[in-house]
Amino acid sequence: MSVTVPAGFRAAGVTAGLKASGRPDVALVVNDGPLQVAAGVFTSNRVQAAPVLWSRQAVSDGVASAVVLNSGGANACTGPEGFADTHRTAEHVADLLGVGAADVLVCSTGLIGERLPMDLLLPGIGDAATALAVDGGDAAAAAIMTTDTVAKQTHVTTPDGWSVGGMAKGAGMLAPGLATMLVVLTTDAVLTAAQADAVLRAATRTTFDRVDSDGCMSTNDTVLLLASGASGQAPRDDELAVAVRRVCADLARMLVADAEGASHDIAVTVVNASDDEAAVSVARAVTRSNLFKAAVFGNDPNWGRVLAAVGTVPEIVAPFDPAALDVRINGVQVCRAGGVGDPRELVDLAAAREVRVEVDLHAGTHAATVWTNDLTHDYVHENSAYST
Amino acid sequence: MSVTVPAGFRAAGVTAGLKASGRPDVALVVNDGPLQVAAGVFTSNRVQAAPVLWSRQAVSDGVASAVVLNSGGANACTGPEGFADTHRTAEHVADLLGVGAADVLVCSTGLIGERLPMDLLLPGIGDAATALAVDGGDAAAAAIMTTDTVAKQTHVTTPDGWSVGGMAKGAGMLAPGLATMLVVLTTDAVLTAAQADAVLRAATRTTFDRVDSDGCMSTNDTVLLLASGASGQAPRDDELAVAVRRVCADLARMLVADAEGASHDIAVTVVNASDDEAAVSVARAVTRSNLFKAAVFGNDPNWGRVLAAVGTVPEIVAPFDPAALDVRINGVQVCRAGGVGDPRELVDLAAAREVRVEVDLHAGTHAATVWTNDLTHDYVHENSAYST
Repeated sequence: MSVTVPAGFRAAGVTAGLKASGRPDVALVVNDGPLQVAAGVFTSNRVQAAPVLWSRQAVSDGVASAVVLNSGGANACTGPEGFADTHRTAEHVADLLGVGAADVLVCSTGLIGERLPMDLLLPGIGDAATALAVDGGDAAAAAIMTTDTVAKQTHVTTPDGWSVGGMAKGAGMLAPGLATMLVVLTTDAVLTAAQADAVLRAATRTTFDRVDSDGCMSTNDTVLLLASGASGQAPRDDELAVAVRRVCADLARMLVADAEGASHDIAVTVVNASDDEAAVSVARAVTRSNLFKAAVFGNDPNWGRVLAAVGTVPEIVAPFDPAALDVRINGVQVCRAGGVGDPRELVDLAAAREVRVEVDLHAGTHAATVWTNDLTHDYVHENSAYST
Repeated sequence: MSVTVPAGFRAAGVTAGLKASGRPDVALVVNDGPLQVAAGVFTSNRVQAAPVLWSRQAVSDGVASAVVLNSGGANACTGPEGFADTHRTAEHVADLLGVGAADVLVCSTGLIGERLPMDLLLPGIGDAATALAVDGGDAAAAAIMTTDTVAKQTHVTTPDGWSVGGMAKGAGMLAPGLATMLVVLTTDAVLTAAQADAVLRAATRTTFDRVDSDGCMSTNDTVLLLASGASGQAPRDDELAVAVRRVCADLARMLVADAEGASHDIAVTVVNASDDEAAVSVARAVTRSNLFKAAVFGNDPNWGRVLAAVGTVPEIVAPFDPAALDVRINGVQVCRAGGVGDPRELVDLAAAREVRVEVDLHAGTHAATVWTNDLTHDYVHENSAYST
């Protein structure tokens, strides 16, 4: 259970036939109130899918009644016709639920550059509306999967009687500015639209924005937060922030663990940086090194490739002395002061799913972690065979 | 023949035993004058190998008598001891040739983070000095190969009696700010150090700097130009520029064609950009998309992934309207005005080694091409198995 853990929400997941596999492909999440507060964070890619253009506008007033999501097609790069399809999708949901179309958010995921089969999607949405249930979270989470191998759900319940739930899809094209992912968070806490927006932006900045599977930024990334207020509880900002961040962090970690074809999860932590941006920039440079990521796939703790990646960050972004750099991999200090450290043979990556890389810049007191995974044969296979 | 095509040069390539394979691994190129003009361009990586630190300083006066190169070890991230090894290498060459150590340039390539076996390297250099010959270019080019499958050599001879020759190694870790590559160019034209520097920088900016195999910038990249003046001919600047650029372009193209594990060469050309930087930035974003490169490996002309990559370039760098973008792949307009164009089935990548992607920004009159290759199983294999 995920998005239906908080009170005031119903959800459903059904099969409309968009996926060749015959698996569920349409999800609906409805906020029954009493509040209908909503906030959204979207991809920073300038090429934006029709549902992103629609939902960004629709959520800008801080109000939404429902989210409809489909897998089996991204509705990206589909021109004015694709936007009309999204509009029609929202209107259909609005008619079924008796709400305004501008209060229906739309998310799509799948192949870019192909129109959605509306003759399948609209009846599927009808089925989803019929299937809406207060325990429909599991079905909704299953219906948004693409190459995901597991449905991704989590929730936090508090002793004060309010909770936050969340579901996510995403298994590739994960990069900052949001991963290729759709995320719906729900809460029954009482909060304002401004609070929802602030807490969502803060949470995504240090969770989803620090996941970088393959350096590729999607056209469809969307993270939504809906608040029903059904618990009657109004938590303090800091309490809310902790719960929402926790749900985001759980889901982000699940995205990395299920990244396409990965055999290792890699956490790159940069410590003693001059500021947060320096730490994140250096960590991101390492998570984007195909050479290092291929080495990890080969169970090779190739710290030279870590240093080569660190060295690509401009000094104006991250001041450090290359001759002072230390690197630890799974606790072994393989690089000391920019040169050879303890024997790399001490690091046994074959036995470890998780690879912890720590880069010490010796240039300040700030730290950050960015997650990625290794570059594997299966990644190449999945992404070369995806559309053909 | 390559570096020994121009008069006034001798070269050699020998086996010192640095490579486990037993293949040649030490090369020497000597400028017998009468001029000993030299210029160099080096990696912009802040983590720089000992030979880069050495040679950058040694060439800064515009004078050099010789270049010694080794494969089988990069001497990068080896600390002060590694720098001392480079210094000792230069001094050994200087003693053998009767020149100053500060006029000996040093290049190394191979694994990062391991000391060079000086007990093998120094005797090898002695053998190379003995083997120096006016037709030694081929042997030198062979001795600098690492994962290269072919030696890379070219030359331009002019009707005026002067010529430019060049050799290169590089087969991965190719990215702007120079690819992982060592390049030595020679000419028997009469030119000044200032001319050599200017012509080399101009040539590399539109050749080696526009090759991006895997987005990874090396710690060892070095491009050197040596001028002997032995032809007695002093070409005009524009004549020199054309010849040097031609040699660089030939070698850059060979680097792409021999990139580790590649099955397609990809030329991304951006047209109608607002300025050159915009064109290069957009092209580079596409050449860095693992998703697109994996699709090409699968013979899938996945233009949606091209657009997703184009959209990651900030508007301040490259103004364009996402709804105006056109994409052609091998001449077929698969994307028109940001949406679906001609059927992708018209593009047959299985039959094509070369993939030409043209992105039309409709935002100006500038154009640029960046070369890359596809992301393949063999790339992952070679780079996961390289050091273990």
